[in-house]
Amino acid sequence: MKIAILGGTGDIGEGFVLNWAGNHHIRIGSRKADKAEAAAESYRGTLAGHEMKGDILGFDNMTAAEGADVIILTVPYKHISGVIDTVRPVLDCQIVISPVVPMMKTEYFEYTPPTQGSAAEEIRDMLPEGICVVAAYHTIASGRLCSLDPTFRCDVLICGDDRHSKDVVIDLTDEIECLRPLDAGPLAAARTTESLTPMLRNLAMLNDLKDPSIKIL
Amino acid sequence: MKIAILGGTGDIGEGFVLNWAGNHHIRIGSRKADKAEAAAESYRGTLAGHEMKGDILGFDNMTAAEGADVIILTVPYKHISGVIDTVRPVLDCQIVISPVVPMMKTEYFEYTPPTQGSAAEEIRDMLPEGICVVAAYHTIASGRLCSLDPTFRCDVLICGDDRHSKDVVIDLTDEIECLRPLDAGPLAAARTTESLTPMLRNLAMLNDLKDPSIKIL
Repeated sequence: MKIAILGGTGDIGEGFVLNWAGNHHIRIGSRKADKAEAAAESYRGTLAGHEMKGDILGFDNMTAAEGADVIILTVPYKHISGVIDTVRPVLDCQIVISPVVPMMKTEYFEYTPPTQGSAAEEIRDMLPEGICVVAAYHTIASGRLCSLDPTFRCDVLICGDDRHSKDVVIDLTDEIECLRPLDAGPLAAARTTESLTPMLRNLAMLNDLKDPSIKIL
Repeated sequence: MKIAILGGTGDIGEGFVLNWAGNHHIRIGSRKADKAEAAAESYRGTLAGHEMKGDILGFDNMTAAEGADVIILTVPYKHISGVIDTVRPVLDCQIVISPVVPMMKTEYFEYTPPTQGSAAEEIRDMLPEGICVVAAYHTIASGRLCSLDPTFRCDVLICGDDRHSKDVVIDLTDEIECLRPLDAGPLAAARTTESLTPMLRNLAMLNDLKDPSIKIL
């Protein structure tokens, strides 16, 4: 499968690359192609010696997204609109994964959803007809995803309105040893799963927890 | 401590009684005193043979709340306004715990918060000045709370604006062996913790989980 990780030069992007590059063709996207190329080279170095059926290449965001089966938006909320404008010309039938969370910090972290109810629903409304959005990965600490430590297992809550797209994301998640995919219902349920990110940040700050994630017992 | 459990004849009320009666004076409240008295007798039977520093008595809701240190509203959202009207004459300095969640079910469970943002904030606005509300226990499956099984440990996310009241609820939670209290921030953060109840119901329904609870890793 060809997976485009837009904004893939950041921590959480790195986590996905390291976990998926064994089985998939990874296209790291960035606003600047040379930054994405440098990240790709660095990730290839990290995985040297691991068995690789896929590959890791770096591009500008539009080139990364072109022809991909799956696009994951590892981009801060404030840049989403710009990134979607950039890739819109090459969108045809990709599945778009949104781990995006609009939030602000004053004394505490606070979820600040758009009028649509969630970032995932806003992104759905920005995309052409026929492009399916799946909301996922809001509760995964990047440090844990990058560690490739299979003894740690936390849960990924996955929301979406299209069964096939959701199943693709469930299968991709299941390939990552430290994660368990759970179906969390329709895209509208992303209002809760997105708000878990500021909740976990507050829990970390107030209870001295490091990189908290969620497990459903 | 004198703890009034209003609506304490239900499943989740029973869980609190069984866990707290060893150390506290429990006042079960119900709309009908005889129903509360019958529940109290049944719970005393369940705990026969356990060491009890406290006691368990049943009353109508107003009598149960009078003179209590802590009131817990184990009452469905739709009845909250009526119960608060009933107990308002005897409120002076009690701490009020809200595990209340406004939600509806169509195809999925959906969180339906009031205009204040959360049931906890709405309840705060209904109460006299000086009565502090703490939101907690939205993610505890009653079956697990009643089982008194200390090998199972899940987390309680506690929100409130008053430090002392929140600490009282943290301490009460810490007394229950199967629970770990976590400070989840201000009362406004109850918008997320309340929405976890319908989220857990959806996760149970869609992933064949029984009595799901949350653990922060």
